[in-house]
Amino acid sequence: MDKSIKAFVFDVYGTLFDVIAIKEQCEEVFPGHGDAISQAWRTKQVEYFMMRQLMGKYESFYKVTRSALKYALEDEGLESSEDIEQQLMDAYLQLPLYEESKAVLKQLQDQKLVVFSNGSHDMLDPLIDNAGIKNLLDKAVSVDEIKQFKPAPAAYQYVLDQLGVEREEILFMSSNGWDISGAKNFGFRTAWINRKGAPVEQLGLAPDFIFQDLNGLLEWE
Amino acid sequence: MDKSIKAFVFDVYGTLFDVIAIKEQCEEVFPGHGDAISQAWRTKQVEYFMMRQLMGKYESFYKVTRSALKYALEDEGLESSEDIEQQLMDAYLQLPLYEESKAVLKQLQDQKLVVFSNGSHDMLDPLIDNAGIKNLLDKAVSVDEIKQFKPAPAAYQYVLDQLGVEREEILFMSSNGWDISGAKNFGFRTAWINRKGAPVEQLGLAPDFIFQDLNGLLEWE
Repeated sequence: MDKSIKAFVFDVYGTLFDVIAIKEQCEEVFPGHGDAISQAWRTKQVEYFMMRQLMGKYESFYKVTRSALKYALEDEGLESSEDIEQQLMDAYLQLPLYEESKAVLKQLQDQKLVVFSNGSHDMLDPLIDNAGIKNLLDKAVSVDEIKQFKPAPAAYQYVLDQLGVEREEILFMSSNGWDISGAKNFGFRTAWINRKGAPVEQLGLAPDFIFQDLNGLLEWE
Repeated sequence: MDKSIKAFVFDVYGTLFDVIAIKEQCEEVFPGHGDAISQAWRTKQVEYFMMRQLMGKYESFYKVTRSALKYALEDEGLESSEDIEQQLMDAYLQLPLYEESKAVLKQLQDQKLVVFSNGSHDMLDPLIDNAGIKNLLDKAVSVDEIKQFKPAPAAYQYVLDQLGVEREEILFMSSNGWDISGAKNFGFRTAWINRKGAPVEQLGLAPDFIFQDLNGLLEWE
């Protein structure tokens, strides 16, 4: 392990946790639509927090996620209700970890481990609790504390301020292209967890490392 | 026509011009991939200018569009070249108008008509020239003049400053949900040209009017 790394900072949704796994709960409520809903929900969620950041209209990730769900269901032509939406929002607190996430966090216990998410604490804290990884982490930082969504530089500045290390002493992990680009843009070292084998974003901000999953962190010297 | 409207401001890509029509040129170069490339190209183009705005890393729409094309081709697993990319970028200057666009602009000739685009002038001006609508417009305003992409409020402020009217005297037309939301957020009156019959964005910024195509502007009182 590179000794110059003083803190490992992990994105949450899509990186430690599988957001698309929620297709199963969507499928139960809307048979035949689980895949489409889960994909559209995530796409719209990302679009909405970016839009709100661009427009200077911050709302919490909870509200953004719920709005994105409403849009996704309407776009699929499905009749919904407050109860159904609540049921699916509750499922978001029970997202599964990726297969290797917990073991990797355990292996890195002698390091400073932090999660940093666009998720507000009302979603983030129960998720981490439910997954049984709270005691494996030093800290869970949410952009909601400063109300600036990643990939705005102000968001990464905020987590840096919480850590008391230099920006180049942070290794930032995310599976999301927009997040790994934003972190690199800010000056973190970055490890892109490229779960889908996607191309590198064409933004002139290539990640320092690319791993297929989080296990790559353990093999890295 | 509502007499309190002093200027009609049109978005360009997706609103007056059909960006997805470029699938035909994509299909010629990469048979069987035209649809996928044209969709991915547009999606990534929008994502990239939003990302750059969020990160404070402005690049011209030309560069953004070319980067998005590179990504789209790579994501489709296609071998490309500078020549092929140039050929498709050149095709972007020849996008077709939607069927009704020209006739509607002609019918509104007694009004102040402006286009306002994220497109840089190197793309916007030839496009307007090639389509033969230059003489139908009072002005073509590009965000490149201020280097702030829509939907940032600064972009809409810029076009407002060019027009010499009050913000609520502007009717802004766009087919793009992110654009019509951004314009409403800034304080323009908005007419969403909802060509695809999509749901209204769940951003609390519903458009003032919704038309199926630009003809709706003519029927509106």
